[in-house]
Amino acid sequence: MAEQIMPGEVWLVGAGPGDPELLTRKAERLLGAASVIFYDALVGPGILDLAAPEARLVYVGKRSGNHSQDQASIDRLIVDAAVAGERVVRLKGGDPAIFGRAMEEIVACHAAGVPVRICPGVTAASAAAASAGLSLTLRGMTRKLTFLTAHARAGEELALDWPSLCDPEATLAVYMGKAAAASLAVNLMRAGLPEDTPVVIVENASLPTEWILHTRLSLLPLAALPALQSGPALLLIGQAMRPPPTGSRPDRYEHTAAGLLVTAPC
Amino acid sequence: MAEQIMPGEVWLVGAGPGDPELLTRKAERLLGAASVIFYDALVGPGILDLAAPEARLVYVGKRSGNHSQDQASIDRLIVDAAVAGERVVRLKGGDPAIFGRAMEEIVACHAAGVPVRICPGVTAASAAAASAGLSLTLRGMTRKLTFLTAHARAGEELALDWPSLCDPEATLAVYMGKAAAASLAVNLMRAGLPEDTPVVIVENASLPTEWILHTRLSLLPLAALPALQSGPALLLIGQAMRPPPTGSRPDRYEHTAAGLLVTAPC
Repeated sequence: MAEQIMPGEVWLVGAGPGDPELLTRKAERLLGAASVIFYDALVGPGILDLAAPEARLVYVGKRSGNHSQDQASIDRLIVDAAVAGERVVRLKGGDPAIFGRAMEEIVACHAAGVPVRICPGVTAASAAAASAGLSLTLRGMTRKLTFLTAHARAGEELALDWPSLCDPEATLAVYMGKAAAASLAVNLMRAGLPEDTPVVIVENASLPTEWILHTRLSLLPLAALPALQSGPALLLIGQAMRPPPTGSRPDRYEHTAAGLLVTAPC
Repeated sequence: MAEQIMPGEVWLVGAGPGDPELLTRKAERLLGAASVIFYDALVGPGILDLAAPEARLVYVGKRSGNHSQDQASIDRLIVDAAVAGERVVRLKGGDPAIFGRAMEEIVACHAAGVPVRICPGVTAASAAAASAGLSLTLRGMTRKLTFLTAHARAGEELALDWPSLCDPEATLAVYMGKAAAASLAVNLMRAGLPEDTPVVIVENASLPTEWILHTRLSLLPLAALPALQSGPALLLIGQAMRPPPTGSRPDRYEHTAAGLLVTAPC
């Protein structure tokens, strides 16, 4: 359905995992039609090149530990632009509906009488699984897929219902879980998840700086260490995450103390 | 990363939820470069128009109750085409890694020494939430999102770990859950999920035939009845699924016995 973006309207647009090619065709069209684009830190390089030359690009990024803009200020910027008659795109990494804080902006638009619509995107877990050459679900074996964030505030313990996360028939996709990886692994093992449960860590999924490590739950605290760079990472945990046979894939692998590192994903 | 599709290679490509505009730019490029495309029933109309004119299009659809092709035959078709030197796209509705039976085809390719890669897609739950104007997660309130299938074989009971699905801080996205809606609702309420838990049913998300109903868990058995058409449907269950205020949205709503029907989504 090829809806247009009208003056005074806001579109929350999913920018996908990072690779500009993983943007949807609809997102590309909306980006090209916007008069102003508010974007955040998780929007991959190259994506803003799709904006119209005359469009205004406004960075409203937040990063863990570096809250340059609070959510209320962003809400106000978006609403004010729409009320001024702009064609507003609010570009969010991944899918706006999955850990994208979309509802704050939707509610702010509603409160101001501003029409707001959503263009979905490819979420990071899908891109991470694609990069690892794996499926997040397995027919008859892994029939449940749980997305969660493991982003605790500084000094706070992760408060999750651990037993419910130990389903052997589920895959866990943990967003923003790198800093909490050690605590996550310990808590899951304590709650009963086997220590040899396969884990894949994917940093910067779909970008040229992508980094993939196949490991196991007991090695996760160690494995997450070398990955502590600035990029966002997904942790994928569960039986479906066993590494595929390497022979038929063009990837190059390297055995490390922390697991099987994919050194040249294709 | 603009990988090419080489002769003798298989790409599993996510076709997204249905709307050809919700295909990724990468999927569009791969479709145009394939010499043969194997597609299934969940691939929306219009998407195959993006294939090269000389490409061979092969329907390998399966539908609930109408298993026209078994999985092993599909695996063989794909592998044989690659071995014959074709540039193979296996096009799957949604995201290949989410309830897409991708692993069977990946393993078949590995076994035959055929390189296989994945292009992720927008999964149906993201499209359904976008259509309903909602976020699947809410900061500080709904921090977990669980995808599951409720597709039991004829005569079989749904065997799910109900207590673990009753987390008040989670959203459940149930794929292929229409036929099992009544059983699902009863089991979730029995396990402790409040009967006024908001539910959204979205059939044919993102297509012109899209159908959206806002209801509550206790009305789900009734609400699912009028939706029993042939299209795939998502059930979204949880506190995050409260209907948005209607005033600021261009949609038209109608109050029905089963809930709030969105009669003209925009």
